[in-house]
Order: sequence, then structure tokens, then C-alpha cells
Amino acid sequence: MKAQLNFPEVLIFKKNCLHIIDQNALPGRVVYRRLCSAAEVAIAIKKLQVRGAPWIGVAAGYGLALEALRLSDRDLVPGLRRAARVLTTARPTAVNLFGAVQLIMNQVKNTSLRPRELRRLVISEAIAIEKEERERSLAIARNGASLVPQNGRVLTICNTGILAGPGLGTALGVVYQAYLEGKEPMVFVCETRPLLQGARLTTWELKRAGIKFTLLADSASASLIEQCDLVIVGADRIAANGDTANKIGTRMLAILAKEAAKPFYVAVPSSTFDLTKKTGREIPIEQRASKEVTWCAGCRTAPVGCVVYNPAFDITPSRYITGFITESGIVVKPYKRNILRFIYSVVTSTRSIKTGGRL
Amino acid sequence: MKAQLNFPEVLIFKKNCLHIIDQNALPGRVVYRRLCSAAEVAIAIKKLQVRGAPWIGVAAGYGLALEALRLSDRDLVPGLRRAARVLTTARPTAVNLFGAVQLIMNQVKNTSLRPRELRRLVISEAIAIEKEERERSLAIARNGASLVPQNGRVLTICNTGILAGPGLGTALGVVYQAYLEGKEPMVFVCETRPLLQGARLTTWELKRAGIKFTLLADSASASLIEQCDLVIVGADRIAANGDTANKIGTRMLAILAKEAAKPFYVAVPSSTFDLTKKTGREIPIEQRASKEVTWCAGCRTAPVGCVVYNPAFDITPSRYITGFITESGIVVKPYKRNILRFIYSVVTSTRSIKTGGRL
Repeated sequence: MKAQLNFPEVLIFKKNCLHIIDQNALPGRVVYRRLCSAAEVAIAIKKLQVRGAPWIGVAAGYGLALEALRLSDRDLVPGLRRAARVLTTARPTAVNLFGAVQLIMNQVKNTSLRPRELRRLVISEAIAIEKEERERSLAIARNGASLVPQNGRVLTICNTGILAGPGLGTALGVVYQAYLEGKEPMVFVCETRPLLQGARLTTWELKRAGIKFTLLADSASASLIEQCDLVIVGADRIAANGDTANKIGTRMLAILAKEAAKPFYVAVPSSTFDLTKKTGREIPIEQRASKEVTWCAGCRTAPVGCVVYNPAFDITPSRYITGFITESGIVVKPYKRNILRFIYSVVTSTRSIKTGGRL
Repeated sequence: MKAQLNFPEVLIFKKNCLHIIDQNALPGRVVYRRLCSAAEVAIAIKKLQVRGAPWIGVAAGYGLALEALRLSDRDLVPGLRRAARVLTTARPTAVNLFGAVQLIMNQVKNTSLRPRELRRLVISEAIAIEKEERERSLAIARNGASLVPQNGRVLTICNTGILAGPGLGTALGVVYQAYLEGKEPMVFVCETRPLLQGARLTTWELKRAGIKFTLLADSASASLIEQCDLVIVGADRIAANGDTANKIGTRMLAILAKEAAKPFYVAVPSSTFDLTKKTGREIPIEQRASKEVTWCAGCRTAPVGCVVYNPAFDITPSRYITGFITESGIVVKPYKRNILRFIYSVVTSTRSIKTGGRL
């Protein structure tokens, strides 16, 4: 029997609303939430009900589409501008959020459009962003699958599958494609403290897909990496030199991979590169509440009044990265030159990044 | 005002019972449990109510003392042998457990002793083990404090303070001594998944001591280690070549320290060396229940039926270790020679290891 995947829809734009699976209710329950305004989308992004760099960008695009549907002709342009501000302050690290909002707001600058045309354009642009991310995801999966050997053992962190982006997601999408090609991959899933996206979300996806996996505490990766064939992770933003912002713990995996002489890949669409940032030092890192570390599942696990270091992301220096698995193939060193080439080729061949104006 | 430490007693042998702080109730409450037999001590060790390699050894010694008090003259020798078996199967990795039991059971071999004499000897031996561990701890603290600079920033994992051993414990004891010497150390505490000994126990100790600390998810250590002056950890067993079994995550810290060019020290008494093991490969690693990873604070955090990799310990190859902070000073490379010299010097100068017969 040929391997198949059977996942529910994670995000659906229909009946003038955005319907999302609330990722905070997983793995226990599949609960859909209905979002009807940009403010509600921003809150869902902030609360991580919708998450993963590609989905965050797509959701933000639909957030503007919801406003286009809601706003009166008179308030349309100022209302979209307000919504763009609300959406872009939801979370600071994933660049897809800013890219999607900017892409759509570039249309708003076109003052010659009538409200009806502008409305239509905003909505079709939001739909196009999702479609393009889906196509990128499937291309990333195809390009990455060739790196996974038969019965390959892949170590990963956080969630980078269908809950992280349209199509098959990013890093986990590579595993799915390898699975569809009959390679019988096996995934070592870092639980991903503090919010346990690996334990809660990645295991839920893999179990549903029928792919073999083993869950581990993040720190146990040091004694397990020797058994792996490769590490694949996603990303929230990549600087022009290849320095990569991704879930806290990614830098740890990259250093462990180097020490164990294992390949370390970042699976990522072109929309996650930010060439306005020269190096990782310029990427803003979200610091999140202490409570995420001092509480677990509603119980206090550390004394009152602890000072906590809780960045949601870390920067993996590009020297640790074997390659970027992108929709156009594997981008390898030297990164400064090859990332520029890759983005240039994308810009000259597609619409969305070109009008995104982020170069 | 001179810095002071004010800790409660962690383990007290009195009124024919062993009274221990139940470490599973921390940091919320200080609850003492009364243990009246070797079987009860073994259960407390298994449940981690008492933990830390030195305390495990001491508790096992008292477990035999409790039997010496309980058993009839006729059943004394076979009963002690049974108790020794029960105690040595409680946990497999910390060698102090086996060392303490063997030390006392060597007395039992002396068949010329009358029951009353044997009883007295077992009890005095158990008390001596605690006293010696206390002295070793204080010497380790003094020897290690010289490595901590003024306002030194120390990264550590698990719990290695007064809850881990008599006196001041091991790695955290070095910090306490630096604090007592007015160096104002600051500790970065890895929360230590899955059982959160860092978040629950080390923070509790440091808060009580009034020492500055910051709590972090284990995987966040990769982005924080650059800010540290050194890493100090404890150990559960050290092979003849210096390979070190310690809490899962220790190997990760050692590799990160190497990459960041930070010193990585293991603070450890001679009783934790096991020269019968040539390398770390020979040290048995305890695999613990999946539930420790798939549940947190009484709530399920991963889907039903996850396969879990949950070793309680990992092996840090000795090449990553800058030195061992011991009661006789800092043991440095080459380890095979210098560990042998160190243990030989201890054997020829003290009673307990000599009769321990573990060389």
C-alpha cells in the first residue's frame, strides 16, 4: 500500500472569517477558533493559537483581508493601516509576518484604486500568499527528501509540519515527502521546552501520519545525536549571511551536530529570508514571560520570584549550517553570495517576493 | 555583614529512624519523611525523595544501620545481606550507593564478631560515611572556590547542593564557598528536564541562600553560555579515564562549553570514582519511565502511546572536561594517570575508601 497522509485543515478562510485549529488545545483536542478581525488574528498569533513562520505570515495576510471585508469604504485605507500596525506588533521574530503585511499594504499605497477594487485586491493577495507558501512548502519537501536516506533517522526540534505552514510545512515536510517516497523515516523529536511544541504538536502530527518517532527531552539530544543521520529544523528569520533565528534550542542542536559530524539543514521558504539584516545580531529575539518556564501544565515548578531567561528563539551562526533546503533547491556555502543569488532568482521569477519590497 | 548560609537538615539519623526531606515536595513544602527499614530507604531512593550521588550513598549506609537495629541476633547477617541486595537495586548509576553498601558489608564478612559488636560496627560505619562525605564536600568547596572569579557567572545543571550531599554538596558547594568568601557569584540554573531538579531544587537552595540566579530551559544554555565564566556540574560515576556519568544534559553543556571556549569542571568526591570501569561505555545508565517526559505536573503533554528516550544520565567524554574539583585539589589531564594517582593518594591516607575495596 502506498504511504498517504491524512491531515485536517489547519487554517481555512471562508464565510468572511478565518477558522484555525487552536494549537494550544493540542494534542488533547482538535478545536477550531473563528477569527473575524485583524485584532483577533493578532491575539491568536500572540497566544500561539496559530504559529510557525509561514502560517503566521498567511494568517496576517488574512487578518488584513478580514478588515477589507469589515471596513466601510470611507474607513478602508486608514483601517487597513491600523490593522497592519496591530498585526506587525503581534510577534517580533518571524519575518513572514512583516513580509505578508508589507506585500498587501503595498497595494494600499496605490491610491487610484476604488474601495471595491482595493478590497478585492487585498483579499486575492491574502489568498495568493497562502497558495504561494503551499507551493514553496511542497517544493521544499521534494528538494529535501533526497537528503533523507532509506530508513533515515532525522533529529528535529519544535513543530515544522502542517501546523507550522501551508502544504506540508518546512522541516517536517521533508520527512513527510521521504515517507511518501517509501523511505520509512524515523524522527527523533525534541520536546522543545518551554512550550513543548515538539511533545504536543510534532508527535501529534507524526502519530496521525503513522511515521515512527521517539520523543526526548531537549538536553538528551547530546547523547542521541550519534544515532541520527541528519538534523533538519525550520526557521523564523534568516539574515543575509545565513545566520538563522529559530526556536530556542536550535543553536544547541547545530553545535551538537557539528561535534558529532552530522549534517545540519534548515528547511525554509524564500519568504523567511530577510536580506535587510546583515547578520543574526540584527534579528530581534522575542523574550517571553517567565511563567512559561516557572509553570508547567498549570502547576508552579519553581519558587516564587525566580529571575528567568526565556528567549523564544536563538541565533544559529551560519557556519554550523550544512545547507538551506529551499523551494529552489539546496543553498550551500558560501552563504552571503549564494543566499543573494537564490533570493535574486526568486525575485526575478515570481511575483510575491518582488512586490514584497524586502530586498 | 559576612555572608552566611542557613539551610535545614536534609537527612538525620535519630531515634532508630532516618528522617529525610522529601525532595519531591520541593519547592512548595519542606516535608520530612521517616524511614525505618532498608526497604523504605530503597523506595525513597527509587522515588528520588532522597537523591544526589553522595546522599544516596549515605542513605544506603543508614539503610543497613536501620536493619542492624531491627534484626534479631539470629537473622542479623542474612538480613543485612538481603538489605544490601534491596538497596543496591534501587538505582544503577550512582556508584556511591554500591560503595557505601560494600564498605559496610565488608564488616559483615568478619564472622568472628558477635551480633552486638557487628550491630555497633554497622551503625558507626554508616555514621562515618556521612561524616567523611561531609568533610569531602567542604574540601571540594574550598578547592573549587578559587576557580570562581569575583562576580563569577557559573552555569550548572540538576541539583548539586545541600540536597545532593552532606556538607555543601558538590558543584553548588563550590558556589556556596565562593559566596562565603564574598565573591558574589551568580548562577545560571538549567531547569533540568524531565524532573526539573534545577527548577525545583537548585533555585530553592539559592533563593534560601540569597545568591543571585537565573533559571533557564536547558536548551537555552547554548545562547547563554557566552555570558558565563565557567560551567560546574556534579557526577554520579566517573570511569578510570575520566568519562563522567551525570544528569542527562551534562554532555550537552560540556560540548557547548568546548565550543564557547569556557572551562568545564566536574565537582566530585573520591567516592564517585569507579576505577573498575575503564571508560564511560561500561557505566550502566538508568532508563526511566516514559511518563516523566510525556506528563508534566500531573498533566499529559504528549499524545498517548509515544515512544520515549528517557535516560536519567549521559556520559560526558573526559576530553571535554577541564578538571575534576576533588577533596584533594583539582585533577587535570592526563586523566588516566592523574585519577589513578588521586585515588591512590586517598586510599593511602584515609580509611573508608581503603576498606571499600573498590580498587
